[in-house]
Amino acid sequence: MAKIVMERALRVGKPQASGPAVVIQRRAADRLRAGHLWVYRSDVEELIPSLETGSLEGGALVTVVDSRGIPLGSALYSAASQIALRVVSAEAAVTREGYLGLVRERLVAALALREVLAPESGENDACRLVFSEADGLPGIVADKYNDLVILQLLTQGTAQDDVRRVVTEVLTERLRLATVVERPDPRVRELEQLAAPSPEALYAAGGADESHAAKLATVFTINGLRLHFDSSAGQKTGAFLDQRLNYAAAARYAKGQALDICTYQGGFALHMAQRCERVTGVDASRAALEVADRNRELNPELPAVVDWIEADAFELLRAYEASGNKYDTIVLDPPAFAKTKRAAEGALRGYKELNLRAIKMLRPGGTLVTCSCSHHVPLEEFTAVVVAAASDAGRRVQLLETRGAAPDHPAVLTLAETSYLKCLICRVG
Amino acid sequence: MAKIVMERALRVGKPQASGPAVVIQRRAADRLRAGHLWVYRSDVEELIPSLETGSLEGGALVTVVDSRGIPLGSALYSAASQIALRVVSAEAAVTREGYLGLVRERLVAALALREVLAPESGENDACRLVFSEADGLPGIVADKYNDLVILQLLTQGTAQDDVRRVVTEVLTERLRLATVVERPDPRVRELEQLAAPSPEALYAAGGADESHAAKLATVFTINGLRLHFDSSAGQKTGAFLDQRLNYAAAARYAKGQALDICTYQGGFALHMAQRCERVTGVDASRAALEVADRNRELNPELPAVVDWIEADAFELLRAYEASGNKYDTIVLDPPAFAKTKRAAEGALRGYKELNLRAIKMLRPGGTLVTCSCSHHVPLEEFTAVVVAAASDAGRRVQLLETRGAAPDHPAVLTLAETSYLKCLICRVG
Repeated sequence: MAKIVMERALRVGKPQASGPAVVIQRRAADRLRAGHLWVYRSDVEELIPSLETGSLEGGALVTVVDSRGIPLGSALYSAASQIALRVVSAEAAVTREGYLGLVRERLVAALALREVLAPESGENDACRLVFSEADGLPGIVADKYNDLVILQLLTQGTAQDDVRRVVTEVLTERLRLATVVERPDPRVRELEQLAAPSPEALYAAGGADESHAAKLATVFTINGLRLHFDSSAGQKTGAFLDQRLNYAAAARYAKGQALDICTYQGGFALHMAQRCERVTGVDASRAALEVADRNRELNPELPAVVDWIEADAFELLRAYEASGNKYDTIVLDPPAFAKTKRAAEGALRGYKELNLRAIKMLRPGGTLVTCSCSHHVPLEEFTAVVVAAASDAGRRVQLLETRGAAPDHPAVLTLAETSYLKCLICRVG
Repeated sequence: MAKIVMERALRVGKPQASGPAVVIQRRAADRLRAGHLWVYRSDVEELIPSLETGSLEGGALVTVVDSRGIPLGSALYSAASQIALRVVSAEAAVTREGYLGLVRERLVAALALREVLAPESGENDACRLVFSEADGLPGIVADKYNDLVILQLLTQGTAQDDVRRVVTEVLTERLRLATVVERPDPRVRELEQLAAPSPEALYAAGGADESHAAKLATVFTINGLRLHFDSSAGQKTGAFLDQRLNYAAAARYAKGQALDICTYQGGFALHMAQRCERVTGVDASRAALEVADRNRELNPELPAVVDWIEADAFELLRAYEASGNKYDTIVLDPPAFAKTKRAAEGALRGYKELNLRAIKMLRPGGTLVTCSCSHHVPLEEFTAVVVAAASDAGRRVQLLETRGAAPDHPAVLTLAETSYLKCLICRVG
């Protein structure tokens, strides 16, 4: 192994290695050797500009080297993000052309994998097609909603016209009936200091001659339920496809009176409405609830009475508990409280309060479906919070299922940060 | 809260509390207050015999009190096991009659829950009906295989004729077509120093006038596959019902050439045979493989060629890797390497070796289904071992699913030891 590394080191001296390089600290190098794929800005030791151009710009492909000059691979460099480097290959000195070849190849593999992980059927025509690092494509995310593909290019290295062109080419080749629409994430664009893509670039993808504005909305199907998707509104890329199989699982256990806290556009609520008498969906966003209500209308066969309530989750649970409301099924699916590591402690307090109140409000034999999508709260910590809530409530709780994101949202095994979604299904005695 | 506890403490002084009691150390009391349900022998401070009989025998119901005399509930006492107390109620001074009432009530609840968790159908007629602490019934386990119910009474407090009678009464009332057979676990009987039940007690359950010997075997169905069950042979209570949904998940991903390491009676192998060209099932037990082969014959429609190999998993993987064998799908489902906390380190080395060899032997795009059923190796440690194996192998690994036992094998949320089965499904790049 040492020999091969030395050969690579020698190769760096050759002309093809005259491109830019970034020297990183030992602990970061050790992490990459163990399969991690990110280098934080604080672990960058030195930026070495390209010999040819004399510059190192955000978005460039760079060779990552340790402090002894041994190359560790090639990465996309960001001049703005706290994640300075995202590894794209274990090979040094990957050129832009080489990288675009990898993008094409990995995109084809990602789409082939979805045919196994989330096969299209009359019951399901939506899934995540590409999930960044997990598909070897850092900074590229694509979701399919029926005939619409929503593309996100999320880093300085991928929000570029050459990547945009290759990705939309492959997507339109492979998914002939789909329109590809790029939808920038404003928060990420700010973090990465990305310029807005031109409208031409955005819609070049579709390749259709119709008005693209008309193509920004569609109706898609998951687990046999029909839902609206409107790419001009909504959090994330629209609905929460990562919860697809958790929605179906919740529907299996739901009964009686159900409460869906942070229902957004009604995902859990409408799935539970297949089995329940009455479902109350709660969200702080009126715009989300308006879509939820239109989603209810798309599924007139659902037997439950469904109400939507615009309210803060904490305030509403406090009030409902005080007035003695009881439920047979409660879903907690709050947004990521912990956007940063520092916020994790406050997030745990928030999860504790929500779960304690929910457990107290469940009738004996009721079901709690409790989720966390905070990257900075790992499963064992989240479980510990639910344990503490059960213990404070003095209720016996059976843990029936510990679930994660649907498999079309894979994680990188060696990058724990990519396993973000936790969903526990509990029976409260 | 303090007030209620004091009232309970006063109640202990009354006549109904003249039964035996066990004083436990503070740390154990704190654990029980947090929802734990066991007290280890090393945490027992004092045994207080019954005032009436002057004795405290193994199997007795005792009131658990902390060192200040405050009662924490009632428990079954074992004079032999390292787990000296298993809590059955938060109430003090539960009598034997009271306990038998709880057993009946909780058993009915456990059976009702299975109608939701594992509904009987043409595709599935086997599940765990009762799972000890997770159903509020410590020391009682019952599995259903088609028309046979296999009962295990696993502690000094439950391996008694009164419990045997109540449990078999409820089971035969609720599951009319089933024969109940008690099947002692030799290892547990040794740990708990239990006498063998009389043949009359064993078979009283069935209530049938046919020869019971003829009823010890049946054919059951899971995920549409037919499998033999013979209660007179086999590890555990027979097949591995906790893997039921993991078998089905593995079948969704399996393709090409598959290897099933520690196949036992062919569970994973035969499920994969629905999708693969060739499946090789490996086990150290010839007796298990003979059943596996009979199971193969029960499912003649399976398209794959299936081979069974009697071999040690480690030796075989070493030999196959050395000779360059490659597979598209590999399942690792070894027995619990870590039977005790001390053995956990050795277990981790064993898991590492198996996973490293399996990852190396997978073709690009292949699937690894890797399981651990060691109680003493939590999910995060097991995942870390697979991460280390992926890293050593230098392969990119996508984590598609993190799975546990089927929900008819629930865990006690507040008793982490009861979440024992881990199953990761990975795609190896």
